[in-house]
Amino acid sequence: MTTVAAYAAPAAKAPLERTTIERREVGEFDVLIDIKFAGICHSDIHQAREGWGKAIFPMVPGHEIAGVVAEVGSGVTRFKAGDRVGVGCMVDSCRECENCRAGLEQYCLAGNVGTYNALDKNGEPTYGGYSQKIVVDENFTLRIPDGISLDEAAPLLCAGITTYSPLRHWDAGPGKKVAIVGLGGLGHMGVKLAHALGAEVTVLSQSLRKKEDGLKLGADHYYATSDPKTFEELRGTFDLIVSTVSAPLDLGAYLSLLRTDGALVNVGAPEEPVSLNLFSVISGRKTLAGSGIGGIRETQEMLDFCAGHGIGAEIELIGASEINDAYERVLSSDVRYRFVIDTATI
Amino acid sequence: MTTVAAYAAPAAKAPLERTTIERREVGEFDVLIDIKFAGICHSDIHQAREGWGKAIFPMVPGHEIAGVVAEVGSGVTRFKAGDRVGVGCMVDSCRECENCRAGLEQYCLAGNVGTYNALDKNGEPTYGGYSQKIVVDENFTLRIPDGISLDEAAPLLCAGITTYSPLRHWDAGPGKKVAIVGLGGLGHMGVKLAHALGAEVTVLSQSLRKKEDGLKLGADHYYATSDPKTFEELRGTFDLIVSTVSAPLDLGAYLSLLRTDGALVNVGAPEEPVSLNLFSVISGRKTLAGSGIGGIRETQEMLDFCAGHGIGAEIELIGASEINDAYERVLSSDVRYRFVIDTATI
Repeated sequence: MTTVAAYAAPAAKAPLERTTIERREVGEFDVLIDIKFAGICHSDIHQAREGWGKAIFPMVPGHEIAGVVAEVGSGVTRFKAGDRVGVGCMVDSCRECENCRAGLEQYCLAGNVGTYNALDKNGEPTYGGYSQKIVVDENFTLRIPDGISLDEAAPLLCAGITTYSPLRHWDAGPGKKVAIVGLGGLGHMGVKLAHALGAEVTVLSQSLRKKEDGLKLGADHYYATSDPKTFEELRGTFDLIVSTVSAPLDLGAYLSLLRTDGALVNVGAPEEPVSLNLFSVISGRKTLAGSGIGGIRETQEMLDFCAGHGIGAEIELIGASEINDAYERVLSSDVRYRFVIDTATI
Repeated sequence: MTTVAAYAAPAAKAPLERTTIERREVGEFDVLIDIKFAGICHSDIHQAREGWGKAIFPMVPGHEIAGVVAEVGSGVTRFKAGDRVGVGCMVDSCRECENCRAGLEQYCLAGNVGTYNALDKNGEPTYGGYSQKIVVDENFTLRIPDGISLDEAAPLLCAGITTYSPLRHWDAGPGKKVAIVGLGGLGHMGVKLAHALGAEVTVLSQSLRKKEDGLKLGADHYYATSDPKTFEELRGTFDLIVSTVSAPLDLGAYLSLLRTDGALVNVGAPEEPVSLNLFSVISGRKTLAGSGIGGIRETQEMLDFCAGHGIGAEIELIGASEINDAYERVLSSDVRYRFVIDTATI
């Protein structure tokens, strides 16, 4: 075991504070990673505050991890010391079910092992990226291509793959009109990725406050959803809408913006149920769907795609002592567009 | 104009009674049909009672029409007197929008013209199949193949196509596990069609009351949804669930029965909104969708498919004087499986 400095929430809703945790010895197929940067995802806050149900404490959040390989186990073939690597939302899965075999570990039928707030196969709690080192099986370790700086790469491991996966699955590309709802951590990646995939991209944001940013990120159009005219003007427009917001949406209103056979895909998850009139999907054979992160193979594909298109996240780099303030700013949508912790400051 | 005997609801929620209506002269592209049989669809009741919003009265319901061509207009090329024909839920559409051009007249962007409770392009109300004759443009007239008797064919024009279309769109076929929710007019057609398409078919019905029927119709399995064990046992089973019920469902419970990437498609439409926790679709990348009837081309394909597989509806033939009683029996699910009016009795 190795003792490692970390930032943890000692209990639900308690502020995060500096502590130490134990990391397991480097096993045969393990990679020991010196974490350099860890992104702050909205779901870190949901979990640290038990918004999504009972959680495990102390909790070291963080599933947007970028770093450098320090050491590898004797059986590791794909990584060596010095490699630039990342870890996302999962650190293991059953590896045997049909989904795992199909590269859809995020939908592992036995449940994948979350990077934090989960129990590992050995029964020990997992601890995330707000720490200085992590030990991860090589099969759940991603390679970060040279074209992306590590700090801007960290958020790709969750915000990037969470938007890339539905954009690919629902065929965003040339000739397709894609809307991204919400211009936050996920949304700004959705805009960059949908644009790079060749789609015509519209941002649907509460206000026009971030319009200039949105257009710079690659959006072709930008509308305020607080303006009822937006829903009249854009009625029947989109092939695909990816909603990144975790506040409850008026699903009927957004479904009305889809073309026949269009899909509204939710990657944000409100804590409360939402209300839906089924006529909204019957009329126009529309789809309301959801999507959760992506598989390991697809995450690597996304990282390679980002490197090929010069895409990284837009970040605000912070020290560990600023984590609690950053949480408050995330909750008030006051971040452009992802806080990333410099783990050297832990 | 031709005066024709019909059964109509004079006002919302009033019993239907015998009356006469005027049918237009046979135009250049029109087909005059001697209606022989008209099915009673649950949506006839919804509309006659204004459950789906303000309606047009007097209302002659009926959009499951089977009959014989009596006369054709000078420009009609596809039908001649004596042909066996059907009319479904639409009698016209804009014919110009991208959906109409793609054979998806049911999703006409200008709105198709309903067979009843709608205004025709000339501004006059349309009247449905509970009558002795109807005049319909040849493009919205279907051919009923010889292999199907007219009385058993009538319900195919709505119940048949409404289930066939989503089964085809979501690829029901060999190797696929399909569940049909509700064994009523639509559901019993769903079972027959999914079975004929080669899928493994499960009926999910409130009780086991109709189990014997369901298995005879082609179901491989039959479960009661009133038994909580059903939802445990079938968790993660289906590629496709087609819900034909118009009562509000516990969507989360049904979504849990889907495999990864599975779809729950609603062809039944409750009058009230339903509640949904979006985690139900995010987990397993599931789809909640809807589907409404089918296009004209697909409706003809369905009729030909039914003829090829010896499929008709299971019907209870009634006289016109029994319509009001039949409505009550439909509402209490006491019909096996579709009432069909012998229009000679009007």
